[in-house]
Amino acid sequence: MPRLVMKFGGTSVADLERIRAAAVKIKREVDRGYQVIVVVSAMSGETNRLVGLVDQASMGADAKTPGFFDAREYDAVVASGELVTSGLLAVVLQEMGIQARSWQGWQVPVNTTDDHGAARIESIPSDNLDAKFAEDMEVAVIAGFQGVAPDGRVTTLGRGGSDTTAVAFAAALNAERCDIYTDVDGIYTTDPRITAKARKLERIAFEEMLELASLGAKVLQTRSVELAMRNRVRLQVLSSFNDEPGTLVCAEEEIMESNVVTGVACSRDEAKMTLISVADRPGIAAAIFTPLADAGVIVDMIVQNISEDGRTDMTFSCPVADVPRAEKALEDAKARGEFNYRELDKDTDVAKVSIVGIGMRSHAGVAQKMFKNLADDGVNIKVITTSEIKVSVLVDRKYMELTVQSLHDAFELERTA
Amino acid sequence: MPRLVMKFGGTSVADLERIRAAAVKIKREVDRGYQVIVVVSAMSGETNRLVGLVDQASMGADAKTPGFFDAREYDAVVASGELVTSGLLAVVLQEMGIQARSWQGWQVPVNTTDDHGAARIESIPSDNLDAKFAEDMEVAVIAGFQGVAPDGRVTTLGRGGSDTTAVAFAAALNAERCDIYTDVDGIYTTDPRITAKARKLERIAFEEMLELASLGAKVLQTRSVELAMRNRVRLQVLSSFNDEPGTLVCAEEEIMESNVVTGVACSRDEAKMTLISVADRPGIAAAIFTPLADAGVIVDMIVQNISEDGRTDMTFSCPVADVPRAEKALEDAKARGEFNYRELDKDTDVAKVSIVGIGMRSHAGVAQKMFKNLADDGVNIKVITTSEIKVSVLVDRKYMELTVQSLHDAFELERTA
Repeated sequence: MPRLVMKFGGTSVADLERIRAAAVKIKREVDRGYQVIVVVSAMSGETNRLVGLVDQASMGADAKTPGFFDAREYDAVVASGELVTSGLLAVVLQEMGIQARSWQGWQVPVNTTDDHGAARIESIPSDNLDAKFAEDMEVAVIAGFQGVAPDGRVTTLGRGGSDTTAVAFAAALNAERCDIYTDVDGIYTTDPRITAKARKLERIAFEEMLELASLGAKVLQTRSVELAMRNRVRLQVLSSFNDEPGTLVCAEEEIMESNVVTGVACSRDEAKMTLISVADRPGIAAAIFTPLADAGVIVDMIVQNISEDGRTDMTFSCPVADVPRAEKALEDAKARGEFNYRELDKDTDVAKVSIVGIGMRSHAGVAQKMFKNLADDGVNIKVITTSEIKVSVLVDRKYMELTVQSLHDAFELERTA
Repeated sequence: MPRLVMKFGGTSVADLERIRAAAVKIKREVDRGYQVIVVVSAMSGETNRLVGLVDQASMGADAKTPGFFDAREYDAVVASGELVTSGLLAVVLQEMGIQARSWQGWQVPVNTTDDHGAARIESIPSDNLDAKFAEDMEVAVIAGFQGVAPDGRVTTLGRGGSDTTAVAFAAALNAERCDIYTDVDGIYTTDPRITAKARKLERIAFEEMLELASLGAKVLQTRSVELAMRNRVRLQVLSSFNDEPGTLVCAEEEIMESNVVTGVACSRDEAKMTLISVADRPGIAAAIFTPLADAGVIVDMIVQNISEDGRTDMTFSCPVADVPRAEKALEDAKARGEFNYRELDKDTDVAKVSIVGIGMRSHAGVAQKMFKNLADDGVNIKVITTSEIKVSVLVDRKYMELTVQSLHDAFELERTA
């Protein structure tokens, strides 16, 4: 029998009414002849409640001083939320006459590394599930987000880890597809709040989805898309709250014809920082970006100017929230004599706009068309970076919506290919 | 190193403040040189919340019709409450500088039967805990109330099962003592709300505790006392909320000198039912009490009168709440012709008062002294039953307090032996 993985996130199992709605969708797939593996998150709010309890527990006796705590205990506590949802969904399915049972991470087992709080799945032996499917099980309800370390302690995969759980099960159990039910109904050509012309995509390639995910389209956890791409798991993103078809994330070959540009992404709260007049010597980039990484600054775009008289300017972008940490890290490193610069220029008023599309590989002039479009709108480009299937620019934040709308029109994204 | 088991119930771990207070008590025992095994319940209210969710999940789609559900899923959901407490307590202990770790039932493992919802512990292999104690673990925090069935599913032991978990660990790990922390500070000669002369006992024998537990002194789960008696585990009942010494429940030989009567117990909401003029033939008792048991009536005392002309009266007591079910079961059986009686007499206005003491074995005249005392007070005895270490009587409910106070005085229970 063909197998299907269905994943329901926290808002899709927030209460018993929603759990029942999920069960109706599951029953439909059982009736279609699938053996179904369901992966569930904790009821929304529950993980935060548990994390809050651990945080409080780790405070000193004055209940104020944050203390050290063992990530293994964090995992033991926080993973309990999914146990509740998986058991409840199994009960609801049974009540509907379906042979369902819950599986805790260690029961499957979902073998992970021992990186507690951010473990990686190493293997999911399918023997136990295969045996139960061979008996009478119609639906296996898996507690997402968790696994078991080599020493038998409970692990969690990090926030959003249930998407990764779902994809890993789809790969391990040879599922035909992995359906991710969420509170949006698919992947759009751009944020529908910015332009009403945004169109839901029928299909999108893994590579494009990865670029969009890393650009801030928070529908799928980046790791889960990587895992799906590596294992050729067809992912579908669709809504828990209606019965519309969603968006299929799949291999490039499965997409017959596509627009040159598939989507326009944007990210509002960016900052641009420039170190003016840095000595242009081998190792200078490492010298600058090591202290930034150590300080936890998420550096995105990096541009180095043409060198003149042995000195250059180094520009990078990062989230606005990271700017104070970045400044301190750079000044401290300068004070330690690790490198020198004349001036540190900050612009905390920029946004990033990107066009993404696998069609760009075979079409010349896409970047040029983008730049011309911005020039026609009178928008100044502050930084440019490109990859094989993406062009990103930094622009003044006030032009972000204008730029997105204008590019969406220019590349005719409201039209299907 | 000597080992100690410490058990904290739901009210003793109700919030982080109380969990910290428990941790302080645990640290004291670690500082005294014990390897400590702590058994915890779910935070108070949490088990009820989880049971409520399962109940709701098992309702039909109309959310009204109670449906069938799988006790294995009930267990998977309900056992999660203890996972949270054990992890939190481990974090708090670590914060205090103690090497603590949490253990889920399946990790130890606590092997149980597969009677989901009311499983019995079959074995607790000590290898895993022994190995960790040999490394650097100072405190093992065990999630109480749960275990794992032979097929690897999670089980629960039934309400109050954490007491049983604690005693089983004390037996399996050769603990010197099992301390049960609770919201009372020990076992009293009688209910202190009835007489201020009630005195906290320093020691009480297992047999006496069993009689008191079954008589309604709800401090310890009966099963846990039986298990302690069978395995010679010394139990101490003491308060989570102060540092007073508690009551030691131990073998008879450990009690040097004791009063003839150790305690006076009472149970308010009893009923007495009499079947008048039943044919006195072999098998009549079975014929009467089988339908009662089938109807879930908890029959306590049973008295059969002297037979006259081949007919007799059969009297029994049960909780007042069971009377309607008892009546229906008897009338239905009579209608089916299983037995006959002339009349069914009910008295729903009685209470039970009992005196308990292992000293009664070697002292004659204890029952007689009790009866004389009641007679002097003008209290009519309606039913009497006796065991080796107990005499129970049913009296009109209005005399219950008077009878308890009077017997407490007569047997001088306010005085230590």
